[in-house]
Amino acid sequence: MNFAHHLRNVQESHSSLLCIGLDTDRSKLPASLRSEPDPVFAFNRQIIDATSDIVCAYKLNLAFYEALGERGGETLRRTLAQIPEGIITIGDAKRGDIGNTAALYATALFDVFGFGACTVNPYMGGDSVEPFCRNPERGVFLLAVTSNPGARDFQHLRVRGTPLYEHVVRKARSWNEHGNIGLVVGATRPRQLRRVREIVPHMPLLIPGIGAQGGDLKQAVRYGCDRDGFLAVINASRSVIYASAGEDFADAARSAALSLRDEINLYRRPSS
Amino acid sequence: MNFAHHLRNVQESHSSLLCIGLDTDRSKLPASLRSEPDPVFAFNRQIIDATSDIVCAYKLNLAFYEALGERGGETLRRTLAQIPEGIITIGDAKRGDIGNTAALYATALFDVFGFGACTVNPYMGGDSVEPFCRNPERGVFLLAVTSNPGARDFQHLRVRGTPLYEHVVRKARSWNEHGNIGLVVGATRPRQLRRVREIVPHMPLLIPGIGAQGGDLKQAVRYGCDRDGFLAVINASRSVIYASAGEDFADAARSAALSLRDEINLYRRPSS
Repeated sequence: MNFAHHLRNVQESHSSLLCIGLDTDRSKLPASLRSEPDPVFAFNRQIIDATSDIVCAYKLNLAFYEALGERGGETLRRTLAQIPEGIITIGDAKRGDIGNTAALYATALFDVFGFGACTVNPYMGGDSVEPFCRNPERGVFLLAVTSNPGARDFQHLRVRGTPLYEHVVRKARSWNEHGNIGLVVGATRPRQLRRVREIVPHMPLLIPGIGAQGGDLKQAVRYGCDRDGFLAVINASRSVIYASAGEDFADAARSAALSLRDEINLYRRPSS
Repeated sequence: MNFAHHLRNVQESHSSLLCIGLDTDRSKLPASLRSEPDPVFAFNRQIIDATSDIVCAYKLNLAFYEALGERGGETLRRTLAQIPEGIITIGDAKRGDIGNTAALYATALFDVFGFGACTVNPYMGGDSVEPFCRNPERGVFLLAVTSNPGARDFQHLRVRGTPLYEHVVRKARSWNEHGNIGLVVGATRPRQLRRVREIVPHMPLLIPGIGAQGGDLKQAVRYGCDRDGFLAVINASRSVIYASAGEDFADAARSAALSLRDEINLYRRPSS
């Protein structure tokens, strides 16, 4: 089963397009966890246990784990082991390098850590992307339109009348022979999101930028889903995992995730 | 002292523009090292001890260390500790992410590992680059024109009559308020290298792609140096560190590095 099919299946069985970003900042943990031997893992475990039945995916931004130093790799691995089988795990690594080196990054992400998908930066072109795409079961989300202000510096520059990101999207479509490539489009760019979905009606879209970054949820869902209401992966990080700064953080995260999932589902089926 | 000054100083004191890429592949190590507790470190240490007086920098591509799994971080840290003070250490990480996350990557590279410089992918724009540039002593090499075939997919697309990579170069110039930004330009693209040097006469250029990748050394040096014959960082990896597959690998690496350094110096000063 290729990645896109797997994603659709878990979205259907969990009735959820929600992805929780486990971008766990050690300085924001509740006091009670600080004495744990691995406080970040202790936090992640409780978040996962409280939410894994209502998400389609978890996304871990590797920067948060690399900044922990040498123990970060162990924290990442233990967190991944806590996530129930079948749920998508996305290594938000934004890697990209020449072919033989990209293959090593793919090994690190998919084999050493065991992620089910990762994000890749397309700037270096086809042979830097291909090594990540060799296994049809592992997903690859290429950065197209990112949610940050700097996205305007290069992604929106016009090449032969169309913005650079559209060239990335079209290349991604042409590279998608295994059905495992998707694109990252920020929820802060609804017009671009709609345009990308027109160009790739059947590819997964990873959509960060709702919540703390200010993207509009309704537009993200309406424009991001395929015709059947699937294949948009709506990521929320801080607004879910830090829903409460107190000891009730896991319950609060579940409540936040539930209401977000339900709001997403409301927008998915406007006619129901 | 900002990064560009520091680079020039070490290039002058070591009479060398050579950077050795410690892209050490465990499967290519001499048999005698395989029984060492940390064979990659044992190899790197001997290469460093044999060459550190004749290079300006070492570049470590992080993919090679991440693919080692959890011990990779320790191997990386021990390798960096072996490199004598004053020599530039480049973390070839090609990272790039939204602002608060880029700051964590900068922490991981500059503070946790202690690199003196790193490579950054510019696709996400200014606010994804800025967090890496806050300390004038730490260098940031932005990918402009990479050495791989896929560079053509996006980097060479024309925007308002000039290729995308030139827009990256001009932005990099405008962001270089601390004197610590440089650019990556592959030696396999000599015309583009010459063009980049015209646009940024005083910024460091990191030039991979000679040796195994087939770039022309003479053109890399002639086009890459500033007017005084400095600020080009010529990287060689496999052709130096695997100069011999036998037990004499360190001596062979020194010989290869010496002749490369001397050839580079010949091209630096065509009139002498």
